[in-house]
Amino acid sequence: MAAFVHFLGLCFLGLLVAVPWGAIAADEDPLQDVCVADPNAQVKVNGFVCKAMPNASDFVSPLLRKAGNTNNKLGSSVTAAGAANFPGLNTQGLSFARIDYAPGGVVPPHNHPRASEVLFVVAGTLRVGFVSSDGNSTLFTNTLYPGDLTVFPRGLVHFIINVGDSQAFSLSGLDSQNPGASLLPTVLFASNPTIGDDVLGKAFNLPQKEIDMIKAALKG
Amino acid sequence: MAAFVHFLGLCFLGLLVAVPWGAIAADEDPLQDVCVADPNAQVKVNGFVCKAMPNASDFVSPLLRKAGNTNNKLGSSVTAAGAANFPGLNTQGLSFARIDYAPGGVVPPHNHPRASEVLFVVAGTLRVGFVSSDGNSTLFTNTLYPGDLTVFPRGLVHFIINVGDSQAFSLSGLDSQNPGASLLPTVLFASNPTIGDDVLGKAFNLPQKEIDMIKAALKG
Amino acid sequence: MAAFVHFLGLCFLGLLVAVPWGAIAADEDPLQDVCVADPNAQVKVNGFVCKAMPNASDFVSPLLRKAGNTNNKLGSSVTAAGAANFPGLNTQGLSFARIDYAPGGVVPPHNHPRASEVLFVVAGTLRVGFVSSDGNSTLFTNTLYPGDLTVFPRGLVHFIINVGDSQAFSLSGLDSQNPGASLLPTVLFASNPTIGDDVLGKAFNLPQKEIDMIKAALKG
Amino acid sequence: MAAFVHFLGLCFLGLLVAVPWGAIAADEDPLQDVCVADPNAQVKVNGFVCKAMPNASDFVSPLLRKAGNTNNKLGSSVTAAGAANFPGLNTQGLSFARIDYAPGGVVPPHNHPRASEVLFVVAGTLRVGFVSSDGNSTLFTNTLYPGDLTVFPRGLVHFIINVGDSQAFSLSGLDSQNPGASLLPTVLFASNPTIGDDVLGKAFNLPQKEIDMIKAALKG
Amino acid sequence: MAAFVHFLGLCFLGLLVAVPWGAIAADEDPLQDVCVADPNAQVKVNGFVCKAMPNASDFVSPLLRKAGNTNNKLGSSVTAAGAANFPGLNTQGLSFARIDYAPGGVVPPHNHPRASEVLFVVAGTLRVGFVSSDGNSTLFTNTLYPGDLTVFPRGLVHFIINVGDSQAFSLSGLDSQNPGASLLPTVLFASNPTIGDDVLGKAFNLPQKEIDMIKAALKG
Amino acid sequence: MAAFVHFLGLCFLGLLVAVPWGAIAADEDPLQDVCVADPNAQVKVNGFVCKAMPNASDFVSPLLRKAGNTNNKLGSSVTAAGAANFPGLNTQGLSFARIDYAPGGVVPPHNHPRASEVLFVVAGTLRVGFVSSDGNSTLFTNTLYPGDLTVFPRGLVHFIINVGDSQAFSLSGLDSQNPGASLLPTVLFASNPTIGDDVLGKAFNLPQKEIDMIKAALKG
Repeated sequence: MAAFVHFLGLCFLGLLVAVPWGAIAADEDPLQDVCVADPNAQVKVNGFVCKAMPNASDFVSPLLRKAGNTNNKLGSSVTAAGAANFPGLNTQGLSFARIDYAPGGVVPPHNHPRASEVLFVVAGTLRVGFVSSDGNSTLFTNTLYPGDLTVFPRGLVHFIINVGDSQAFSLSGLDSQNPGASLLPTVLFASNPTIGDDVLGKAFNLPQKEIDMIKAALKG
Repeated sequence: MAAFVHFLGLCFLGLLVAVPWGAIAADEDPLQDVCVADPNAQVKVNGFVCKAMPNASDFVSPLLRKAGNTNNKLGSSVTAAGAANFPGLNTQGLSFARIDYAPGGVVPPHNHPRASEVLFVVAGTLRVGFVSSDGNSTLFTNTLYPGDLTVFPRGLVHFIINVGDSQAFSLSGLDSQNPGASLLPTVLFASNPTIGDDVLGKAFNLPQKEIDMIKAALKG
Repeated sequence: MAAFVHFLGLCFLGLLVAVPWGAIAADEDPLQDVCVADPNAQVKVNGFVCKAMPNASDFVSPLLRKAGNTNNKLGSSVTAAGAANFPGLNTQGLSFARIDYAPGGVVPPHNHPRASEVLFVVAGTLRVGFVSSDGNSTLFTNTLYPGDLTVFPRGLVHFIINVGDSQAFSLSGLDSQNPGASLLPTVLFASNPTIGDDVLGKAFNLPQKEIDMIKAALKG
Repeated sequence: MAAFVHFLGLCFLGLLVAVPWGAIAADEDPLQDVCVADPNAQVKVNGFVCKAMPNASDFVSPLLRKAGNTNNKLGSSVTAAGAANFPGLNTQGLSFARIDYAPGGVVPPHNHPRASEVLFVVAGTLRVGFVSSDGNSTLFTNTLYPGDLTVFPRGLVHFIINVGDSQAFSLSGLDSQNPGASLLPTVLFASNPTIGDDVLGKAFNLPQKEIDMIKAALKG
Repeated sequence: MAAFVHFLGLCFLGLLVAVPWGAIAADEDPLQDVCVADPNAQVKVNGFVCKAMPNASDFVSPLLRKAGNTNNKLGSSVTAAGAANFPGLNTQGLSFARIDYAPGGVVPPHNHPRASEVLFVVAGTLRVGFVSSDGNSTLFTNTLYPGDLTVFPRGLVHFIINVGDSQAFSLSGLDSQNPGASLLPTVLFASNPTIGDDVLGKAFNLPQKEIDMIKAALKG
Repeated sequence: MAAFVHFLGLCFLGLLVAVPWGAIAADEDPLQDVCVADPNAQVKVNGFVCKAMPNASDFVSPLLRKAGNTNNKLGSSVTAAGAANFPGLNTQGLSFARIDYAPGGVVPPHNHPRASEVLFVVAGTLRVGFVSSDGNSTLFTNTLYPGDLTVFPRGLVHFIINVGDSQAFSLSGLDSQNPGASLLPTVLFASNPTIGDDVLGKAFNLPQKEIDMIKAALKG
């Protein structure tokens, strides 16, 4: 299984993501100054093995230079840099991402299993929210303007919507080199293979035809 | 917000859970032998402050003695012990839970934001699965028989269904004193307040009436 | 040295343990969804290197299906699953064990150097205890009935005895994939090679013949 | 001592910083969904105690909305948000900062004792560098353009200079809620009180008058 | 229970230790520069709450200035400094100890539940050993001369004996602010209250009179 | 890049250090009893891979037996043992060092990016200090006599000077197997290659000729 996270992969509504989601989370501590991920290593470990000789270019990445293409059903595009595509991040405990949004664009509810996230609004007006995992399912929601910061706590479900009239753009830091992302519509109704209708039907209290309808809509 | 997790709380399909979800996760290390949670403390910290004098009874709990009532729409009942209801667990990095299942009973897809989980089948036949967060949304699924173990990796979405003809019973250890649980049908469609139809409609590629239908079914 | 822990190994009173002690402790965080231990890897790291392609069967284990044989001098049998014999546990921070007890059966005083433990009584009546490491050597002891939980704090010496009239059975979760276990009678008096009589004699304030007597008794 | 970090405080070259440096580093894990820092708490702990009832506004911050004033000798201004001035970050393991630069503006060599840093260039051309702590004092340096990312490894000395003709602007994520910042010219030659000339003279192999000259220059 | 560890307390063979064992272990990370333990705090947390205003004297300690009195049955004396008696160590993840030895003096087999230990021989000739927890109970033993270093891995049972003709003196660093110490002869046979003879008899394969004899010898 | 730290390497003022700085810091937890670093391993990981079969001699080291040569411009010599030159320390979270001082000898201001440090004075009178990273640059300074302990908090800049009339000698424990050391005069003015005069000139508010003078003095 690829350690590298395709945040909004091709499997999700036919959405093309320029660069897969990287990695941000609550990682172990470094045991040396740097340990640049070796992309050609045969040996796989927790994280990545180190290349023999790092050089300065290992510590710079152009992955987030261009806005993602938001001409898709969601109206959003996540471009991320983690240890898998920005090897200098290996063992450093951080990853970074940009999100571009068409007007009305949405990043569906999702969670990062290994990271908290801090998001900064570069342009546009965003409504964001996260839901508690304490049994109350409390929704904390805010509307953000350019220059605002928000935080999505470790592992909690959150979402973003561009509620302004123009393109929007945000940047996020996450405290793992590989935070992962479980996009919940996809994970629930379009996994490979899909979760059985017996589970989903009972979980959502819906008859099979409704479950089938939801699955079909996601294949859209 | 209560740090204590009501795993399958009253808010979820009218399901009554005897004891709220406790705690399983990747916690910080203890800095003394024991630090029994003080339920009456005014001061709130990361975890719980310690009571002044621990005694032996702080380290035993009858919370999981009785099977939960599975006479509900899900046909399942989660009873959990964490640092909030079993104070001796505070700073020890672990929690424990029992799940009872009617035939066909389901624990809906959910994730624990702060823990991995190991599950042992005491009785019955269970089908379990978890979905990767790496962009491929790969479903790993297994059928378990009495005495079998399985593991749900840190923060990933997973579910359980009793596929046998009789009551089933399982026990789980989690590596956090308060793992939390985001029950996804509830978190997505029945949070307090609910996530806006604009977000859900675009995320699921569904018209508003279908979103309303799903929300209504969960209120069932 | 094998990372895998033979909890009550052959070296201890001739006791045969079906499956060695696995691993439960306060481990580092995972840096990807899964990293299934590769049993054939030449390279050894902290924990285990990952196999190239995980599949569903890596995440299920039958190791704890059968009760251990308690027809031995201790009247107990520990069967454990950790990252060494249940590879899907690698990087997940947890292990799990079952203990079977004849009437009067004992798990000798021991400690896990890398884990706390939560124990659940499935059947029988158990007396358990742990001793503080704060210089007071306070013994915290409890009698447990079916369905009861207890906790043994990280690294502290603890023991279990079946004080009921019938076979007993318990299950434990530990917060390390490889907690280790130092069975103290064996570690002190039957290590390989043994600790010198000069050390033991002074430590226990006993003449050499008494030390020899204790060593001989353990060889049984 | 304030846990809150005044990154480029008044004590440094008379430079006024709009908002003190916050916090980004390799912190302990959260033990509940959220633990919003209570600014009025009498009790001080590792991090901050939690306020009784969080609300949505605790998780949004306007601290980074405005560019800092770069009309100072350094030609730069750091504005940061950590758990002390953005309480929702408490226990989440992250902080965030913006830096504004006049042409030629410099962020002096400094290190964060508790964090790695990922920096994203919003506008301008920056030259950055960090120096290894392995005895070789290897300088790794890169020139960054808009959209580029770089990483400064945990605890290592690094610096930034705007080598373009116009104002520049960057954003940083750090993996601690309170990373701290040791601005080395200030720490070495303008601490409170100052380090003795005997130490500095021998450390820099300089006579006292030269040390005095350096100290005077920093007082400006 | 005191978080502070009386390493070789009065309860152990009547041995008086000048300063109790402090603390060295694998602790959580600091979230600020310093958090000096407040000895008068009502509130107890994992570790210690911070005093309001630290000053320079909080970061220096004379606790290890004098050799301990080795005129006791063990012929050894452990003097330790941890966060409880050297408050500046709180949150810093370290403690330190000195051990003095008469000729033939012994530090009995013990383990630190929360720390590894590095020991440096200042004077004398010491034989040291530790025993693996992997089921093989392998004893690793070395003889150390002045200037030698050794390491006792996290949580493993270890011992020290002065095999030279003169007084010996060693210094140790441990990676916890409160490592704890379980002195095994005391923990097993002289805890408060004592572990039952049923447990000890079966664990050591000895009749009750022999267990009584060992207990009596330790009361000396 | 060598993970091994040459604390006061040849590059620094022509000072020869017998044994490079080892490793002390806030490391990840061990996942087995021991993992002795394999010096011949092709594969590089966070820390070191383990050798196949450990033996007792892996856990003892003579590296600190001899006093370093203090006949150099600084009048000091640091000799350290970490996981790179004392392989038994790998995964144990600790390193150890000795420092020898001529009268007036100085250990220049430096920081360890991955560790706190506890220092014990064996002989001599030392003045020590560390500077806060909270924006106030508060200097905490103490004079230490034989037997005194002090602590340098994680990652903060600190220094030591022998203010007595005779040779001095101290020992330090650090909570990382590879703490690293950024010797600030070298890192700032004599790195490889050197930091540009544009950065240093503005950072120190000095004209180029003064920067050149400082650089030249360090080349001495």
